[in-house]
Amino acid sequence: MDIGALLTSAGINIAICVVLLSLYSILRKQPSNVSVYFMRRLISEPIKHSDPFRFERLVPSASWIVRAWQATNEEILAAGGVDALVFLRIVVFSIRVFIIAAMICVFLLLPVNYYGQEMQHKQIHSESLEVFTIGNVKEGSKWFWTHCLALYVISCSACVLLHFEYKNITKMRLAHITGSPVNPSHFTVLVRSIPCSQNHSYSKSVEDFFSTYYPASYVSHQMVYRAGRVDKLMKDVEKIYRKLKTIETQNKMSSTPGCLCGGIMHYFKMLKKEAESVECKTSSDRSQPSQTDKERPAAFVFFRTRYAAIVAAQVLQSSNPMLWVTQLAPEPNDVYWSNLSIPYKQVWLRKIATLLGAFVFMFVFLAPVTFVQGLTQLDQLRQTFPFLKGILKQKFMNQLVTGYLPSVILMLFMYAVPPTMMLFSTIEGNVSHSERKKSAGIKVLYFTIWNVFFVNVLSGSIIRQLSVFSSFRDIPTQLAKAVPTQATFFTTYVLTSGWASLSCEVIQLFPLLCNGFRRFILRRQEEPCSNHALTFPHHTEIPRLLLFGLLGFTCSIMAPLILPFLLVYFFLAFLVYRNQILNVYVPKYESGGQFWPVVHNTTIFSLVLTQVIALGVFGIKRSPVASGFTIPLIFLTLLFNEYCRQRFSPVFKRSPAQVLIEMDKQDENWGRAEEIYKLLRTAYCQFPLLSLDLSTSQELSMAGNSGQNKDEGSSKDQESHNPDLNEIKLSS
Amino acid sequence: MDIGALLTSAGINIAICVVLLSLYSILRKQPSNVSVYFMRRLISEPIKHSDPFRFERLVPSASWIVRAWQATNEEILAAGGVDALVFLRIVVFSIRVFIIAAMICVFLLLPVNYYGQEMQHKQIHSESLEVFTIGNVKEGSKWFWTHCLALYVISCSACVLLHFEYKNITKMRLAHITGSPVNPSHFTVLVRSIPCSQNHSYSKSVEDFFSTYYPASYVSHQMVYRAGRVDKLMKDVEKIYRKLKTIETQNKMSSTPGCLCGGIMHYFKMLKKEAESVECKTSSDRSQPSQTDKERPAAFVFFRTRYAAIVAAQVLQSSNPMLWVTQLAPEPNDVYWSNLSIPYKQVWLRKIATLLGAFVFMFVFLAPVTFVQGLTQLDQLRQTFPFLKGILKQKFMNQLVTGYLPSVILMLFMYAVPPTMMLFSTIEGNVSHSERKKSAGIKVLYFTIWNVFFVNVLSGSIIRQLSVFSSFRDIPTQLAKAVPTQATFFTTYVLTSGWASLSCEVIQLFPLLCNGFRRFILRRQEEPCSNHALTFPHHTEIPRLLLFGLLGFTCSIMAPLILPFLLVYFFLAFLVYRNQILNVYVPKYESGGQFWPVVHNTTIFSLVLTQVIALGVFGIKRSPVASGFTIPLIFLTLLFNEYCRQRFSPVFKRSPAQVLIEMDKQDENWGRAEEIYKLLRTAYCQFPLLSLDLSTSQELSMAGNSGQNKDEGSSKDQESHNPDLNEIKLSS
Repeated sequence: MDIGALLTSAGINIAICVVLLSLYSILRKQPSNVSVYFMRRLISEPIKHSDPFRFERLVPSASWIVRAWQATNEEILAAGGVDALVFLRIVVFSIRVFIIAAMICVFLLLPVNYYGQEMQHKQIHSESLEVFTIGNVKEGSKWFWTHCLALYVISCSACVLLHFEYKNITKMRLAHITGSPVNPSHFTVLVRSIPCSQNHSYSKSVEDFFSTYYPASYVSHQMVYRAGRVDKLMKDVEKIYRKLKTIETQNKMSSTPGCLCGGIMHYFKMLKKEAESVECKTSSDRSQPSQTDKERPAAFVFFRTRYAAIVAAQVLQSSNPMLWVTQLAPEPNDVYWSNLSIPYKQVWLRKIATLLGAFVFMFVFLAPVTFVQGLTQLDQLRQTFPFLKGILKQKFMNQLVTGYLPSVILMLFMYAVPPTMMLFSTIEGNVSHSERKKSAGIKVLYFTIWNVFFVNVLSGSIIRQLSVFSSFRDIPTQLAKAVPTQATFFTTYVLTSGWASLSCEVIQLFPLLCNGFRRFILRRQEEPCSNHALTFPHHTEIPRLLLFGLLGFTCSIMAPLILPFLLVYFFLAFLVYRNQILNVYVPKYESGGQFWPVVHNTTIFSLVLTQVIALGVFGIKRSPVASGFTIPLIFLTLLFNEYCRQRFSPVFKRSPAQVLIEMDKQDENWGRAEEIYKLLRTAYCQFPLLSLDLSTSQELSMAGNSGQNKDEGSSKDQESHNPDLNEIKLSS
Repeated sequence: MDIGALLTSAGINIAICVVLLSLYSILRKQPSNVSVYFMRRLISEPIKHSDPFRFERLVPSASWIVRAWQATNEEILAAGGVDALVFLRIVVFSIRVFIIAAMICVFLLLPVNYYGQEMQHKQIHSESLEVFTIGNVKEGSKWFWTHCLALYVISCSACVLLHFEYKNITKMRLAHITGSPVNPSHFTVLVRSIPCSQNHSYSKSVEDFFSTYYPASYVSHQMVYRAGRVDKLMKDVEKIYRKLKTIETQNKMSSTPGCLCGGIMHYFKMLKKEAESVECKTSSDRSQPSQTDKERPAAFVFFRTRYAAIVAAQVLQSSNPMLWVTQLAPEPNDVYWSNLSIPYKQVWLRKIATLLGAFVFMFVFLAPVTFVQGLTQLDQLRQTFPFLKGILKQKFMNQLVTGYLPSVILMLFMYAVPPTMMLFSTIEGNVSHSERKKSAGIKVLYFTIWNVFFVNVLSGSIIRQLSVFSSFRDIPTQLAKAVPTQATFFTTYVLTSGWASLSCEVIQLFPLLCNGFRRFILRRQEEPCSNHALTFPHHTEIPRLLLFGLLGFTCSIMAPLILPFLLVYFFLAFLVYRNQILNVYVPKYESGGQFWPVVHNTTIFSLVLTQVIALGVFGIKRSPVASGFTIPLIFLTLLFNEYCRQRFSPVFKRSPAQVLIEMDKQDENWGRAEEIYKLLRTAYCQFPLLSLDLSTSQELSMAGNSGQNKDEGSSKDQESHNPDLNEIKLSS
């Protein structure tokens, strides 16, 4: 590939991006797409539907870019929580470090590489890309100190920036803990593996245990129930409700408001009777012993103070470590109820099984892909669909099919990866949505790095994929041979996959199609409720950013031409993700930047990998001085990582006692104890009386003509599915 | 090597053992050796010195074996604590598992191996040992199922026994926690890395912090001081004291009792003045602000209850995880005071440095040994010492020197390993003797397994030592080729090194020589004080036992002839160690079987290694069925290990809250609170007023003619270096 071809490819991709982004700027102005592009706003603020048609709606504009750029940190925090802010820090970190890398690599290394050998240079646009890589510098050259210097500068600036980010994110996390309004999860411990007793129920066991050993701080508890008949019933009810609402909306449109309220009320009275037996059970009502057999050996236990909760969560309770297993409870909306029923004894087995499963999936993934790609080759196509013969004879079509079909198939298979990993993480037995997402994200990360970086590097070079495992010492040398030759591929990968993925992200193709289908084919006019709102897909986006980081680091010294394209990617990512966080994704739960240590470790891995590859290259190129200086750099980078692990990471695993005790004292001073206990009693609810959320219950109260929205409580209360409030609203 | 040679070697070694053990049975009856062979008894019970000479003293007897055999578990527990009992469980476990292995291997596998090939068998005593190994079974034989069955039986019985032991030892550990008298370490938290403050001392910081955040449970604290001038002074004083005591003893022998008491008292009055300024400081006396600059940022903090202490030890205190680092304090006698002064920020660096150091030491250990062995070869010797020429010309001497000298040099170098590892563990910054010993033990374990097992296996076979690292997949095959050929060496290793090490252990050569030197050359007659008593050398003995276990497992199926010799070793070890625990070693501190998880993991490692080697052998011998059955066995063994890690190992890291709270309640019911606080105030003392222990202070009080021993307190009190008591005794 020469410079001209690269620029052409870049031009095409820029054009595609511009077209897609313009399309987005038009689509977002259409009122029918408001639920696709403004879901978050739709939920937090009512949007006027009566937007008349204007010509401006068909003109592409860059206003969204300006708005995304201008948004302050406070707005981001309000819109997406700490997780969103931490996510954007990854992008900012990448931009910063790659600006530094681009400066030194383009201005120092590019000329060194270009004039690295005595050769006849062609005209610049027909120069091969190889000329710009480290491969062009002749063996034993004295100029390798520049590469070594660049490596030092990049590694040091990356470490300094990483330290800065880790420090700030730790602060952010602590501020999130102290600054947030009373969070029920701080007071709650999830107890699993409650021992079985012949004489009394699990609930009684929990009460006995905690009132014996934590008499001063134990408040109450709430059992987890088997999700069976009742759960199914509730889902059916929800369906009926939605159908009724559709009819009712249509009736309203035909200006006969309120006529169906009687019907709705009838249904809900029926429901209320059924539901009375499954209201959230706190320890105060144990009137129905028939429920005992449905109890699962897991419970949420509420404590008087945050400190007491964290102590109960961290201390080993029983002399059998498989009984009375405690951990701090996830946030109410974060609980993954169905996994709470999994017996704790299974969890370690499930973890091993899914780990093995993910491992196997990662390594054999390419086998079926290659097989399917082989099947869809040209000859196969001609045989299967004889009518295509004519078309396929044309040279252009031929090229298109053979060139694009394999990569399309690969892309389709790749789209199946995050859901598969999510499935693995569900089977694993994670008890919260955020943990599940984090675990899936880590799996996707390993998968991506292996299948995009290593497989390409190793299969692209002479070495066979499998024989790589047999040799251990030669890895640096082999990587050093392979990476520079693959740099061209990675550059085009950034152009195509990177830029395109951002355009796809902003256009939200799948939700857009669903929305269109629903609106124009099913002809449903109501806005989808927040249940269908998307949460930020950390488990796909973080691995993608980290992969591009890895490509950037490893290629930076070898083939600096990748860096400008990468910088464009990160700038675009900055704008796109800010826009998406502000407008599209709804933060249903908050992990407090829990995933940062993973990002940090991966970046360190990328750095060390870069250094190891550089070591190999310096070895091949016979530059003992450069090799000699690289070895201490590897050691120092690992030491820095260990320092960060000591200094920062404990805060991401355990909350500091000092902070929690201060918060408890403040609550005590302000006399908020009673308020908190009341909140705790209703915070966790396995079967909320209809899973109606804020927006639908508001709509209902409007639809039922029951006057104004009577409860002016905080939106927190409403979001936590307070069954009493819902009940009042429904029966009034 | 043939059977005859093996039996000859066994005969020689048995003879050596019998001679050494008989020698021991004579030596132990000599009153002058009482401090070598009965140190523990000497300390716990006064022994009559007036043993007249009897002829029996020169007759070897087996009474010690009978006594060691008959000792009950209670006696062992009383003599050596839980650690000794757990140590003996390793031996018992080994005996049990290798009895099963020997049964199945000798009766099932030996015949299969012997008749594995159609060949002319010689007379049994001139049969090569190779004939009894798996190497003799012909390729593709149908009889490999017997080896596979044996592997299953050994693995399963090992796992069942391991589970049984782990369960019992966990119970033992819990019983130790609950059953022991009030242990100050349960109430005490060691705080390190106290933040520096301009305004007030570290002591004030600690008081402020804990009275703010733990107002209900904080009792008091005690700072750690820089061990400088005062520490040195105390040591000098101790030396003077010892000299004085010697003079005084000699005087007493010349029947002028008490004449030097005035002198002693004078010295001690001087000392008292100096020492007044360095008495153990509890928070109640902070009268001397001049001490502030000597305070180190570490302190022992005492709590009202065990539960409060464990909570404070486990919770993350500060939002900076490098400040206010807490851990449960070691037992008072277990504290390694000089390491408490190490700044906590250095600890992680020191750990990495010593790990690297130990790693390098492990891998380059053989280089200097081989070099020195090369130097001392025959030709070199002849050149260096020309007068030896005549002797070395004799064939027998020649063989002796070339045969024995290298192994003697290796042995000498090997003796340097445990002290070196102990040094590494000291530099590492462990804060307690038991942790230091455990850490050194793990290092010695890795060292032994690498340098005895792997280096022998790999250098004995065709493969070069270094090229092994480059291949990864072939390891099972290469081990499979190497281990059976090295089995003969390992059998003789068990005979020589194993049996001999036990004889040396029981004879206590080094202390015996020291004692002889002291008594007959320096002519000192007093018994050495308990300061010089030896604690059980877990860090050398556990790795040795585990090494023999590893040899037994890996050779069991390959070369079953090793098993009878190994069983003899373990039986002898059982008797010898029981005897040593009952008579020789003094338990100064107690870790509660903390090292068992290491033993468990090593045994699992040995099992898996055996299975991997078997897999390789079955592969070489082309027995796909046996290979196929071995793979799930590896997987199941690893699963079993993971189960044990989940089920038992947390109890070895953290004490269960339930148990501690019950103990606290009992104390409360019995009204022992005040008693405990009093104990706590004096338990930890960095500079005991003279490090005189029980025996010397008793001697002193006798020497000073101050009448009868006035304090009849428990020996616990005395052992904890209560300074007040000592002071009273000294000045009275």
